[in-house]
Amino acid sequence: MILTSPDAASPPHPSLGRDRANGGAEPAIYEGFTRRPRCGYLVPHDGAGGPTTRFGRALQGVSRFLVGAPIPTAREAYERLTKVKALAAFSNDALSSVAYGTEEVLKVLVLAGAGALMLNLPLSLAIVTLLAIVVVSYRQTIRAYPSGGGSYIVASDNLGTLPGLAAAASLLTDYVLTVCVSVAAGVAAITSLLPELLPYTVPISVGAVLVVTLVHLRGIRDSGTIFATPTYLFVGMMFLLIGVGLVRLVTGGMAYVPPESVKVPGTEALGLFLILSAFSQGCTAMTGVEAISNGVPAFKAPEAPNARKTTVWMGVLLGGMFLGMAYLVSQVGVMPAEDETVLSQLGRTVFGVGPLWWLLQISTALILILAANTSFADLPRLASILARDRFLPRLFEFRGGRLAFTAGIIALAVLSILLLVIFQSSVDLLIPLFAIGVFASFTLSQAGMVVHWRKERGPNWQRSAMINGLGAVATGIVTLVIAVTKFAHGAWLVVVLIPLLAGAFWAIRRHYARQAAARQPELPLDPTEVHARVVVPLADLGLPACQALAFSRALAGGRNVTAVHVTDSPERAERFRTEWEACPRGNAELEVIESPFRELKAPLLAYIDAVQAANPDDTLVVLLPEYVPGHWWEHLLHGQTALRLKASLLSHPRVVVANVPYHLAAA
Amino acid sequence: MILTSPDAASPPHPSLGRDRANGGAEPAIYEGFTRRPRCGYLVPHDGAGGPTTRFGRALQGVSRFLVGAPIPTAREAYERLTKVKALAAFSNDALSSVAYGTEEVLKVLVLAGAGALMLNLPLSLAIVTLLAIVVVSYRQTIRAYPSGGGSYIVASDNLGTLPGLAAAASLLTDYVLTVCVSVAAGVAAITSLLPELLPYTVPISVGAVLVVTLVHLRGIRDSGTIFATPTYLFVGMMFLLIGVGLVRLVTGGMAYVPPESVKVPGTEALGLFLILSAFSQGCTAMTGVEAISNGVPAFKAPEAPNARKTTVWMGVLLGGMFLGMAYLVSQVGVMPAEDETVLSQLGRTVFGVGPLWWLLQISTALILILAANTSFADLPRLASILARDRFLPRLFEFRGGRLAFTAGIIALAVLSILLLVIFQSSVDLLIPLFAIGVFASFTLSQAGMVVHWRKERGPNWQRSAMINGLGAVATGIVTLVIAVTKFAHGAWLVVVLIPLLAGAFWAIRRHYARQAAARQPELPLDPTEVHARVVVPLADLGLPACQALAFSRALAGGRNVTAVHVTDSPERAERFRTEWEACPRGNAELEVIESPFRELKAPLLAYIDAVQAANPDDTLVVLLPEYVPGHWWEHLLHGQTALRLKASLLSHPRVVVANVPYHLAAA
Repeated sequence: MILTSPDAASPPHPSLGRDRANGGAEPAIYEGFTRRPRCGYLVPHDGAGGPTTRFGRALQGVSRFLVGAPIPTAREAYERLTKVKALAAFSNDALSSVAYGTEEVLKVLVLAGAGALMLNLPLSLAIVTLLAIVVVSYRQTIRAYPSGGGSYIVASDNLGTLPGLAAAASLLTDYVLTVCVSVAAGVAAITSLLPELLPYTVPISVGAVLVVTLVHLRGIRDSGTIFATPTYLFVGMMFLLIGVGLVRLVTGGMAYVPPESVKVPGTEALGLFLILSAFSQGCTAMTGVEAISNGVPAFKAPEAPNARKTTVWMGVLLGGMFLGMAYLVSQVGVMPAEDETVLSQLGRTVFGVGPLWWLLQISTALILILAANTSFADLPRLASILARDRFLPRLFEFRGGRLAFTAGIIALAVLSILLLVIFQSSVDLLIPLFAIGVFASFTLSQAGMVVHWRKERGPNWQRSAMINGLGAVATGIVTLVIAVTKFAHGAWLVVVLIPLLAGAFWAIRRHYARQAAARQPELPLDPTEVHARVVVPLADLGLPACQALAFSRALAGGRNVTAVHVTDSPERAERFRTEWEACPRGNAELEVIESPFRELKAPLLAYIDAVQAANPDDTLVVLLPEYVPGHWWEHLLHGQTALRLKASLLSHPRVVVANVPYHLAAA
Repeated sequence: MILTSPDAASPPHPSLGRDRANGGAEPAIYEGFTRRPRCGYLVPHDGAGGPTTRFGRALQGVSRFLVGAPIPTAREAYERLTKVKALAAFSNDALSSVAYGTEEVLKVLVLAGAGALMLNLPLSLAIVTLLAIVVVSYRQTIRAYPSGGGSYIVASDNLGTLPGLAAAASLLTDYVLTVCVSVAAGVAAITSLLPELLPYTVPISVGAVLVVTLVHLRGIRDSGTIFATPTYLFVGMMFLLIGVGLVRLVTGGMAYVPPESVKVPGTEALGLFLILSAFSQGCTAMTGVEAISNGVPAFKAPEAPNARKTTVWMGVLLGGMFLGMAYLVSQVGVMPAEDETVLSQLGRTVFGVGPLWWLLQISTALILILAANTSFADLPRLASILARDRFLPRLFEFRGGRLAFTAGIIALAVLSILLLVIFQSSVDLLIPLFAIGVFASFTLSQAGMVVHWRKERGPNWQRSAMINGLGAVATGIVTLVIAVTKFAHGAWLVVVLIPLLAGAFWAIRRHYARQAAARQPELPLDPTEVHARVVVPLADLGLPACQALAFSRALAGGRNVTAVHVTDSPERAERFRTEWEACPRGNAELEVIESPFRELKAPLLAYIDAVQAANPDDTLVVLLPEYVPGHWWEHLLHGQTALRLKASLLSHPRVVVANVPYHLAAA
């Protein structure tokens, strides 16, 4: 039996008494919608389709309070940043690194005794040289990719998909670690000031991540303004510290009092490995240098030149602060300690215990926690680009009510909270995992740039390629050094994770590609070839069952409708058949299936398979009468049979599953 | 537009080329099924519809290994028990209580100093008198209810629904507590023997509950045999203990060495409250006395007389053991201790450290853990009766693969494990919650019997009513005494819980009654009144979408089919419309809904509401094309849009939801 042949081909039907209530020519205006002048284009009124239950509305209220009312796509604002604001918005990650960079170098050197600490200054010089190379390299990237040249884009464009994915995987891991390290270091700045908060380090860190997450879920549109004050406050405090420190070095009278928890100098030999380890730790100060090159389109015109200038300024400020601090630390003789940061010790020595020291600590904590913001802005954006290219689930492309990439933000929050809890919010434990991803992506991106210049062969391309080549070689060597020296302290995790992640991206893309390439329909594409055969599982002959039966008879034109009753008792089967005979059933047939083991699902699925095998040209429709309780707790009183059947039938090809609901509350 | 009018009324349709592939007269034989001689009655072959995936088969294998292969309903065996076996099967709960009854009395008395322990003997006499009254009372219940007279049945029959529910609630709470107390006491018997196991008390208890649960999920059909050996071993050991103890009392030479953890006698005044408290604790020995009256039909014929005789025997054995032990304990001067049970101390003193003492401890542990079995047999049966009467979800009526009431068994296991963990498997902490439920149900059941005799007015009805009345009054007073003396120690929990449970039963029944009384159909019951209007939400025009479109055109005869595309960008809307124009769509129309907030669900639901409001006589069918991934992990790559829509549409009255699946694996 066949469904009505569709469309104009079908002759007037005897029961064809009704026609479109709304006429054929004039489209309907639906309640809650405005119809646009174009045909078939509706715009819902505000709040249409919102939650109707009290619980749903309460939930929406809480969400609106926390995250804010949704913003329409059309109102998407795009604030262009001045150089001053852009420096604050994009560089606080990089600039904030000075708060822990020197400290991490000292903590390695002290293992070889107090004397080894004098190596801090030459190591810092080496790091600043590396910084200069990277900054010059990235200035070129900005010139070549004025629409934003993240490592993923540059590497995939020039080196191919797999290097691009490796760069993306490196960046993603490092974004997560940036959040952890920045927040942990920010909280360390606070606990240096208020040691009584030390036992609450982990909860404070998690709370800070949650606040940042919430801020980003609300969507930050004026990030430049929010970031400017704490960033420049921190930069100002750092240069004030260096200036006052230098003056007091000359005038004398600075007395350094090491804290109680000062680390006892070790007795390890001062070998090459130890020195390289210290260097690796210091390189963490360079994380975040690439941020400006990602965000070129956010600058005021002319975008690229402004971005290039800002990159240089960022390099100068970062280098100046890093060197100045390293010099002061070595002159004052600050020792790394357990419970007070090196920067706090330096501030206490230079400024004395008082408002300036407090301000330094507060601005340090602020800029560090804001540094987490860079990750929260960049990771979701990178994830959305990966999702657009089908390397991540499409979910990451979706922008939530406040135009933020909700999935990316939440994924980052969950992962960084997890790491903070596992690593007990300890900067020392997290640092070895850090920086390797950044330097790997630096290397891939710079290497990509070399290929780019070679392909373009513009004027002076050799010079440009040389500069990026130098950057690639330098950062490549540093990547190796970091991987080797930190391998045993946790970097192995990242070394293993990055290829795994890149592999996962690859597998995801393959899945989507297979999906897109599928050309074989499962059910007919021509309505005249659809022959519906309806199976209606019935437990009893109550109202839900009768409704479903009526619907299936209408659906299949009264033929090829089979009601199925599963039972374990022949007596009950007979009783059901008697009731069935008494019920208006048309041509519908009844099959009783004996289930000797009192199972429902298995015999029913077997029956559906058998019917399908016997009628390969029919489209099988399983029609489930479903009783819908009015209250949530009433769900507990009804076996979730329909739900479980639906879940099982989902994996059956060529079976259309339909629900005919019955709502007690509505009846 | 209308669906084909169904059945014979519809004239031959032009496209009606196909007819039943299997003919009208001869019903099809389906693969995997045997067709019974009766028409429309199928029997699946073994294993038909079983799991097809490797994971599903592995899961089934594990389940079969643990619980066993399913048993067909027809093979249900019903073993009749001899008096000897029945005593073991039904009375181990009651008989095992002597293992902790005396101990709990002593633990209260010792609070008033060592001298107060001499009150143990008179209190035990009082308890045994009460036992005699209850046993005589229950002999009458057996006579009146030869088909099984549980407290729930007797109380609802004679006192009304609410007292019946109160009895049921009391019994259910006490069944759970029986499991906890028995297992905790059984483990205490083991740790008295092997003190090195003390730190593992809770895990051992939980393990014991799990083993008992598994045994019951397998279904126990020869319980009499399983129970007989340990029960009679325990009874034998107890009488041996009492006999040897009495002889050695006379011959002298018994040296009682109290364990290190012996309780230091307290200095409380020996007031009425303390004495009554001790009495209440001792009454726990009477739990389980009602079990035989529940299980009368399990006896060999003549059922009732045999059951009556067994009840008396149970009373005699229990009373004898209880009194004998109380006498020995008072003569030897056993003191309650933290880490060794009183029974173990007595055994050690009478038998000496050696095989007899070990055997006593092992048989005690065995019978106590078997006492948990009584609950596992009775609670699921009572729950199934309550479910049959619609006071509990129907789930409790369902018998699993091994003919056991799966839901009741699992609920009991979960609740008792929870309590064991919360109360750290401590008999002392659990005992105050215990017994109040049993005595409340005793009282309700005996009171019900008084009404029963008054109604029947058979020969000598006054005498019968007098006996049950005495039982009711005695157990009623004890219930009050227990509630008052133990209230502050935890009994308040049970006092609060029982009415709450009874109220919940009442609410569940009301819900089912409202459901049964509903007479208003939500959708037409007459197929000719079904006018389908199909809405197909489409994200793109890929294969799944085209299949769904073809199916909906076939379903609605090509008219009243509207494809809906939700988008936040007018440009993408135009692009979609252009693709749409190019696609074979018949008379189907397209509505594009603008979603300024990038939401999908809310505008779609609002649209469906609006369409329904505009066409109140139509049956709205929402057809969801659904992409079904081949592997579980692929589900993560696809937004669960269809699933979320289905969940939301479930609460929309009068909307039929259908899924047109597309399986990548199959394509």
